[in-house]
Amino acid sequence: MTGLDELPVRDDLRGKTPYGAPQVQDVIQLNVNENPYAPSAALVADLQRAVGQAGLTLNRYPDREAVHLRTSLASYLGDRTGVALSSDQVWAANGSNEVLQQVLQAFGGPGRTALGFEPSYSMHPILAAGTGTRWVGVPRQPDFTLPAELAVAAIEQHAPDVVFVTSPNNPTGTVTSLEAIAAICAAAPGMVVVDEAYAEFAAGPSAVTLLASHPRLLVSRTMSKAFALAGARVGYLAASPAVVDALRLVRLPYHLSALTQLVARIALARTHELLATVELVKQQRDRMVREIEGLGLTVVPTDANFLLFGPFADPPVTWQRLLDRGVLVRDVSSGPGLAGWLRVNAGTEPETTAFLSALEEVMQ
Amino acid sequence: MTGLDELPVRDDLRGKTPYGAPQVQDVIQLNVNENPYAPSAALVADLQRAVGQAGLTLNRYPDREAVHLRTSLASYLGDRTGVALSSDQVWAANGSNEVLQQVLQAFGGPGRTALGFEPSYSMHPILAAGTGTRWVGVPRQPDFTLPAELAVAAIEQHAPDVVFVTSPNNPTGTVTSLEAIAAICAAAPGMVVVDEAYAEFAAGPSAVTLLASHPRLLVSRTMSKAFALAGARVGYLAASPAVVDALRLVRLPYHLSALTQLVARIALARTHELLATVELVKQQRDRMVREIEGLGLTVVPTDANFLLFGPFADPPVTWQRLLDRGVLVRDVSSGPGLAGWLRVNAGTEPETTAFLSALEEVMQ
Repeated sequence: MTGLDELPVRDDLRGKTPYGAPQVQDVIQLNVNENPYAPSAALVADLQRAVGQAGLTLNRYPDREAVHLRTSLASYLGDRTGVALSSDQVWAANGSNEVLQQVLQAFGGPGRTALGFEPSYSMHPILAAGTGTRWVGVPRQPDFTLPAELAVAAIEQHAPDVVFVTSPNNPTGTVTSLEAIAAICAAAPGMVVVDEAYAEFAAGPSAVTLLASHPRLLVSRTMSKAFALAGARVGYLAASPAVVDALRLVRLPYHLSALTQLVARIALARTHELLATVELVKQQRDRMVREIEGLGLTVVPTDANFLLFGPFADPPVTWQRLLDRGVLVRDVSSGPGLAGWLRVNAGTEPETTAFLSALEEVMQ
Repeated sequence: MTGLDELPVRDDLRGKTPYGAPQVQDVIQLNVNENPYAPSAALVADLQRAVGQAGLTLNRYPDREAVHLRTSLASYLGDRTGVALSSDQVWAANGSNEVLQQVLQAFGGPGRTALGFEPSYSMHPILAAGTGTRWVGVPRQPDFTLPAELAVAAIEQHAPDVVFVTSPNNPTGTVTSLEAIAAICAAAPGMVVVDEAYAEFAAGPSAVTLLASHPRLLVSRTMSKAFALAGARVGYLAASPAVVDALRLVRLPYHLSALTQLVARIALARTHELLATVELVKQQRDRMVREIEGLGLTVVPTDANFLLFGPFADPPVTWQRLLDRGVLVRDVSSGPGLAGWLRVNAGTEPETTAFLSALEEVMQ
């Protein structure tokens, strides 16, 4: 039997392992920042009805331009941010990972550089590697904040083709101010991507409000978190129509299935209902912050649906002891600048209670 | 307003236009090789029932490994080809385009070369460009066949890292013999991809039967055609487990949505029903061959659900005249070696009748 090491895979892939958190069954899953509230029976009934119609034309290719979905996304994002958006300013793909991969295919690639502020979403450098884009990871402040001066100095030093700013940042929960993002846009010689996967959980305004004054700004979002659709794989971005045209040059034709377009539109029609779950999640997050601090631990200030807590002398041991008590959190401690920390996302009230009880036991 | 030409897109994208056939409404669509038979009411009812369950967990990420789907695909492909396959020999993604993009990310890329025999599926060179892989297009014989000697000589000359063989070939319908494919595998220094998107419409055996003796062979398939699921975007391949491991290194995490995995499994559970539509399509294809030849035109021998017909002095004019009569076919005449030809796929009996009547009018 031929082994992987005998195949002519690219040299930069040799010895790598696939990205992904451990998938463990029959435990409380607080490790991948999902929305713990399942879609409502009413939403699922809407979906069933719609599938009854759409299923009958699945032999046909889907709308390659996903016009209806992009119109709905533009409407949602416009309502949410107060910025009027049209469908030609919005692009969608199979999760924000695919959106960001397309951004790097269009604006990064061989001979080009992408820069991010670490620790941050670990897929950004992986997507850079997968598209042949050189990656520069610039350390954040020790408290994980990103002051404008730090960001601008790094941009001036490295002149990157693409800058990534994750806000709220994953895995730290840290928000970057709009002033800093505007300064980054002014300094950047190329494109600036603000990854707002967790924006709905944050108190402050969106970088979408900066689009009109910064034509090389892209703001990416996902329906995996606030819209509770991680299983449906829908990411999107807002940018200038010219940026969307550029992404059209690299997207795979018919990349977004008819069912994906359908389920996203059905969820968007129930925005009010889904954003109500965001409020519940934020309540549990705020409770977690208070109670974890009550145990004598530190929590990094967070505007997301998750938080970093610690420090632990041996995070993998704490991770395992929590798992032994039926709660799965994320061990991020091997990441840049993350020694000592674990990440956990807010669950439902009972899930959060179970986590807090397990943590209290582990801390004794 | 910033235009696309003012953005720092990659130089190799400048001046390009997005891939894709014209999408025209309210005409008979025989231009993208879809299965003209819609999913049955019974299949759609199965899907609705399943969505009623699966919808309730869409807040969770899907199975990153798509194990159930890959098991079903292995079982189908094994039954169909007589080759016992396990799920670790099968990989799936959002359409065969994404499968092939992953293959090029793992085994092609900057500094590497992919080679194909043209005319063929025009996405292969586009996928090569999108992954920074150098493309070498080698002309087929004037009759579009691919003799082993021609293929082997080209491989010896160019030493490509990845070889593509489309069989039945798109847009010509031409089958490449297993003997030629075995010779290609023996000669190729790297990976060999046999793109069998249209295999279910062909009479001969599948290259899957060569897998055991050629560890660097990959056979890609799609559910878009025989399984009438173009709208659901499901492509897959069979290869050695080591090849699947390599693809896992470049796939985006959770690339395949829960709904995509679901609809594919539901269709596979109705394989018998869907392969019955393949027989109907083949009947209409054979009828089209006879009747087009009866109009004094030439049809390239085909084993797919489509055919090349011509020659026409001015194919775009004939294309427009057919469209004026409500039938959309594919103008492929600008492709390499395709001057004078149009492509049409078999429709239902009434659709095929409408096409043949329109063509007869146009020919008068």
